[in-house]
Amino acid sequence: MKAEIITIGDEILIGQVVDTNSAWISQQLNQAGIEIYQVTSVADDAVHIKDALQNAENKVGLVIITGGLGPTKDDITRKTLCEYFGTKLVFHEATLDSIKKWFEKRGMPLNKLNKNQALLPENCTVLENNEGSAPGMWFERNNTIFVSVPGVPFEMKYLVGEQVLPRLKKMGMLKNIVHKTVLTQGIPESFLAEKLAGFEEGLPEDIKLAYLPSPMAVRLRLSAYGHANENLGAIIDEQVKKLQGILGEAIYGYDDEQLPEVVGNQLAGLGKKLAVAESCTGGYISHLVTSIPGSSGYYKGGITAYANETKINLLNVKQDTLDRAGAVSKEVATEMVLGVKDALGADYAIATTGIAGPDGGTEEKPVGTVWIAVAGQEKLVATKFVFMKNRERNILRTSHTALQMLRKLIIEENK
Amino acid sequence: MKAEIITIGDEILIGQVVDTNSAWISQQLNQAGIEIYQVTSVADDAVHIKDALQNAENKVGLVIITGGLGPTKDDITRKTLCEYFGTKLVFHEATLDSIKKWFEKRGMPLNKLNKNQALLPENCTVLENNEGSAPGMWFERNNTIFVSVPGVPFEMKYLVGEQVLPRLKKMGMLKNIVHKTVLTQGIPESFLAEKLAGFEEGLPEDIKLAYLPSPMAVRLRLSAYGHANENLGAIIDEQVKKLQGILGEAIYGYDDEQLPEVVGNQLAGLGKKLAVAESCTGGYISHLVTSIPGSSGYYKGGITAYANETKINLLNVKQDTLDRAGAVSKEVATEMVLGVKDALGADYAIATTGIAGPDGGTEEKPVGTVWIAVAGQEKLVATKFVFMKNRERNILRTSHTALQMLRKLIIEENK
Repeated sequence: MKAEIITIGDEILIGQVVDTNSAWISQQLNQAGIEIYQVTSVADDAVHIKDALQNAENKVGLVIITGGLGPTKDDITRKTLCEYFGTKLVFHEATLDSIKKWFEKRGMPLNKLNKNQALLPENCTVLENNEGSAPGMWFERNNTIFVSVPGVPFEMKYLVGEQVLPRLKKMGMLKNIVHKTVLTQGIPESFLAEKLAGFEEGLPEDIKLAYLPSPMAVRLRLSAYGHANENLGAIIDEQVKKLQGILGEAIYGYDDEQLPEVVGNQLAGLGKKLAVAESCTGGYISHLVTSIPGSSGYYKGGITAYANETKINLLNVKQDTLDRAGAVSKEVATEMVLGVKDALGADYAIATTGIAGPDGGTEEKPVGTVWIAVAGQEKLVATKFVFMKNRERNILRTSHTALQMLRKLIIEENK
Repeated sequence: MKAEIITIGDEILIGQVVDTNSAWISQQLNQAGIEIYQVTSVADDAVHIKDALQNAENKVGLVIITGGLGPTKDDITRKTLCEYFGTKLVFHEATLDSIKKWFEKRGMPLNKLNKNQALLPENCTVLENNEGSAPGMWFERNNTIFVSVPGVPFEMKYLVGEQVLPRLKKMGMLKNIVHKTVLTQGIPESFLAEKLAGFEEGLPEDIKLAYLPSPMAVRLRLSAYGHANENLGAIIDEQVKKLQGILGEAIYGYDDEQLPEVVGNQLAGLGKKLAVAESCTGGYISHLVTSIPGSSGYYKGGITAYANETKINLLNVKQDTLDRAGAVSKEVATEMVLGVKDALGADYAIATTGIAGPDGGTEEKPVGTVWIAVAGQEKLVATKFVFMKNRERNILRTSHTALQMLRKLIIEENK
């Protein structure tokens, strides 16, 4: 089956909002075996919306419409869908009840605009919205299904993920597909491709491998396609095992896991504490660690030592070491990681020092040169990297590389 | 004039890439007085591309096409445009020359695929691309202009910004419009709207005001529309002066300026140094400060004190104060800001302590409660805020609020 996504809203066409909904819906439908034929963005204009609906109905079996379901008068999707299907708006009692309850609970008066959100086209099946006041709507005509959902991302995600996809599945309109994403850090995409050449050649025909690179990680998505009664989970797990054999500890997690969360779980599980000393990453590692709820349980804190005096006074780096080896050196990274571990009384520590760019490089130490050190209870590892010229990407890449080095050290020390 | 944007590329329709190009182009064209009628995303499929071109030609005066101009065989835009216009591909000598030079300079051999990027439709005007190897193309048929540009964002931006818009202007197709964005921090959107009610009412009819809110700032965009010979710059500056009178120091900058850069320029200009102590922001303020190139000139560093012992040992916060007032208090914020200023030998300092969420709140101090302190050479200001429940937004909002407080303190101390 093919699908079209129609996004409705002036805010998209004046460029005030980037339409991230379409990409999310495309991903979900693609992974469920539905091909996206077209994405169309139109203004809050009835004639234009009906025109887009007609074009889509002529071409595809599923039309997902987002936006234009709010209570104000510029939100015209419901009225326009009525005109398109030649039906009328009627009060939907269950929806009115849940809107009333929502307002009662908050002790707020209900006005006419709120009530009108329960006015829905007579021919639609109502899709309950647990995340907001505007319900989703499901229509069928000839061989095409139309679904209308709000444009607010988390409401849209709830309705598409929890209401629309399960219904399509029940109707037998989704292919049997299973995906598993393997998350790797530390091996550049081209080297990964080389390492995995044999693996890729040996993949059964109905399993596909996609590389999804970013400055933080290279994600490997395995997708298995099969018949309704095949156990694709088992088939894909077999391939994941092979990847584990080839890539080892370069794999830090699966699917939606994030590296700072993985490292946080390691520390929390062991009851150990972390401290971070940052020069070139300037606080970004500390930010990543503390972006995880509950990180106060294992994070002692960090020191961003931008100036040399700060390295000396707070991290106990020696003036002599700075003079002899320079701030961007194995020696300074090592003194920083031991200094922060000691100063904060932590069990594990990370230190970074480098030239983030765009300026400040030399012949010997070009922009992108970075030393990362990680220390545990017995071991200490310091490694040099030479990244590129882009400051933002260098900060991202250094931070994730450092977290991956720590992850490996923790595994090593707790075997 | 109305325009349609057609984005070509499978990566958009499988949701691998979020289409940010359309939003950028929409903004630029809108600000130049061209209304976007529709945005259409289609796959690398010749029949479908031609269909989309025909639909657009029937409706609008300008079609901007992005994507599908790379050297590999799935990039079919050039060939498809030839079919659409009933013309053929010919070698464009100037383009071939510049491709050859590009490869020579890098000592790389030129292969057939690279050469073929100089094969362009006979009827097009070539738009030189300073940022990459694929040139832009300009076509005219009947009353519609078609422009094809690469999908790589910085190449697209160069071609639309430096080649397409100036051409449209020369042809007299752009309205005379001038925009100025006034950047404010610290006044919520609804309060701003109240403060500016009188100002808005008094605006001349051809000047529009738009509110663009985010967790970091509320941007106010003034747009003046006029005749070709009007000096709109002067007209808009007059209104900006009025805003300055009403909003005072809530305004931290204009247009593309960023708050960490504005504060950095203040410090660099005075030759003063900054230090930061963070609890709830977890390193994010330090990251914002160090995201600006050259920040090593005025940033001593920071201490992320997540654990109470870290506050005590590194920031000289007293155990007694923590026991008496709690970690999220005016007293602790004050001791933190003085402690970090002293420990790092800085002239100015920021401290944050709060409950970022989603958990950890109490009746008395709910999630979102934050104390921010800023200290200068004579003055110290500590202020309490109660934000919302979302951890990520609380971190963003607290960080930008703190930088704005510092900015005001620096102005105050250096009057």
